[in-house]
Amino acid sequence: MTRFALTLEFDGGPFMGLQRQKHGPSVQQAVEEAVHAITHQHAAMHAAGRTDAGVHAIAMRAHIDVDHPRGADHLRDGLNAKLRPAPVAVTDCVVVPDEWHARFSCTGRRYLYRIANRRAPLTLDLGRAWQMGIPLDAEAMHDAGQVLIGHHDFTTFRSTACQAKSPMRTLDRLDVERVAGEIHVHAAARSFLHHQVRSMVGCLVRVGMGRWTKGDLADALAARDRQRLAMNAPPQGLYFVDATYDPD
Amino acid sequence: MTRFALTLEFDGGPFMGLQRQKHGPSVQQAVEEAVHAITHQHAAMHAAGRTDAGVHAIAMRAHIDVDHPRGADHLRDGLNAKLRPAPVAVTDCVVVPDEWHARFSCTGRRYLYRIANRRAPLTLDLGRAWQMGIPLDAEAMHDAGQVLIGHHDFTTFRSTACQAKSPMRTLDRLDVERVAGEIHVHAAARSFLHHQVRSMVGCLVRVGMGRWTKGDLADALAARDRQRLAMNAPPQGLYFVDATYDPD
Repeated sequence: MTRFALTLEFDGGPFMGLQRQKHGPSVQQAVEEAVHAITHQHAAMHAAGRTDAGVHAIAMRAHIDVDHPRGADHLRDGLNAKLRPAPVAVTDCVVVPDEWHARFSCTGRRYLYRIANRRAPLTLDLGRAWQMGIPLDAEAMHDAGQVLIGHHDFTTFRSTACQAKSPMRTLDRLDVERVAGEIHVHAAARSFLHHQVRSMVGCLVRVGMGRWTKGDLADALAARDRQRLAMNAPPQGLYFVDATYDPD
Repeated sequence: MTRFALTLEFDGGPFMGLQRQKHGPSVQQAVEEAVHAITHQHAAMHAAGRTDAGVHAIAMRAHIDVDHPRGADHLRDGLNAKLRPAPVAVTDCVVVPDEWHARFSCTGRRYLYRIANRRAPLTLDLGRAWQMGIPLDAEAMHDAGQVLIGHHDFTTFRSTACQAKSPMRTLDRLDVERVAGEIHVHAAARSFLHHQVRSMVGCLVRVGMGRWTKGDLADALAARDRQRLAMNAPPQGLYFVDATYDPD
């Protein structure tokens, strides 16, 4: 058995999420079926994150254990051929030590949230961003967002379905910037709670609309109460950007 | 009657082209039907360019003549509502003088061609770029492309279906740059022949693969012979970026 680390890019639109689900297609199922088609082995895929239905990935990291003497490049090309027409691509495939684990060895995760801050409906970016017609104040969003940085109980920003044992997380980065007609929110942490990024973005948008102050956001965090959430941003604007691992 | 100038963004994927066609949906038909739904008037849309099936627009310029006392903003929002779910959006709508003509007043047109220079199939950019696995030399492409700048007979780079009276055109700009994993080709001219940008890109890609030299490209231009074309790049990588007009 060889452990192969995969870098996956995918359009989350047609999937019920990354993780295998009983009620619909998943990225995991698509990859595992492609692995089986090439190697005739039933390998379970482990991924750095468990993205929701509709959430995209630019560079999700995952691993599988299979016998494949023809090597990593052959496996990558074979998987890409078998994955079609599903919008999942293996952009990289390398052999890693058996101790390397896509989820448990991961020391950092980064997300991007794209808001198309414009009045016109989306065409070229349909399903790739959250379209919001009300002009947003990106500077106010960035400034307010800094209250979320650090080690906190993020219960307010956590889905009631979240399975994590603890609501405590350490947010390392939350930057909001205007890029042409879009607002980009960059978030980084060792790990995130279920819906945490979308919930933080929903509250930041309330700030950007001028309806919440920085203090309101701090109060919502301190309340540790899901009922205090302003709103959950929709999935189509969210991208899993990358996962980081210790050099060795 | 008031003349309204429209700025259109569209995903060319589902259309047979910008111009009205007997055999399938067009951007023109979608806009004219939306105009009729709002104003109950049959107005013909005139556009700065006639993009092909599958070609996109970031800011196509067009105009229509209608009576619409409720104004340009109301017309823009109404058109966007009626255009759904067609992937066409009116990003701007303003009143212009009756002498202003989207096509005949236009003094410059700009296109972008996106090549995703990677081995993996496209997912998030599917239908938005030309995927090409062979590594391309962007510098060689840019250097070779400069032989096309200026006033030339572009017969080699012109569709046999082109209806322009003359094959003479003046190419003002042809820049090739690498942007992350993509190669972007920027082209600007007062006007272009049918398939000219895609034909130029197809030949530049041959240069980027190392199979054509700058001299081969110059020879193909000088031959003024469509048979000398290397290849026509596919439509999904092409974007009409914008049209320019004299300030008055």
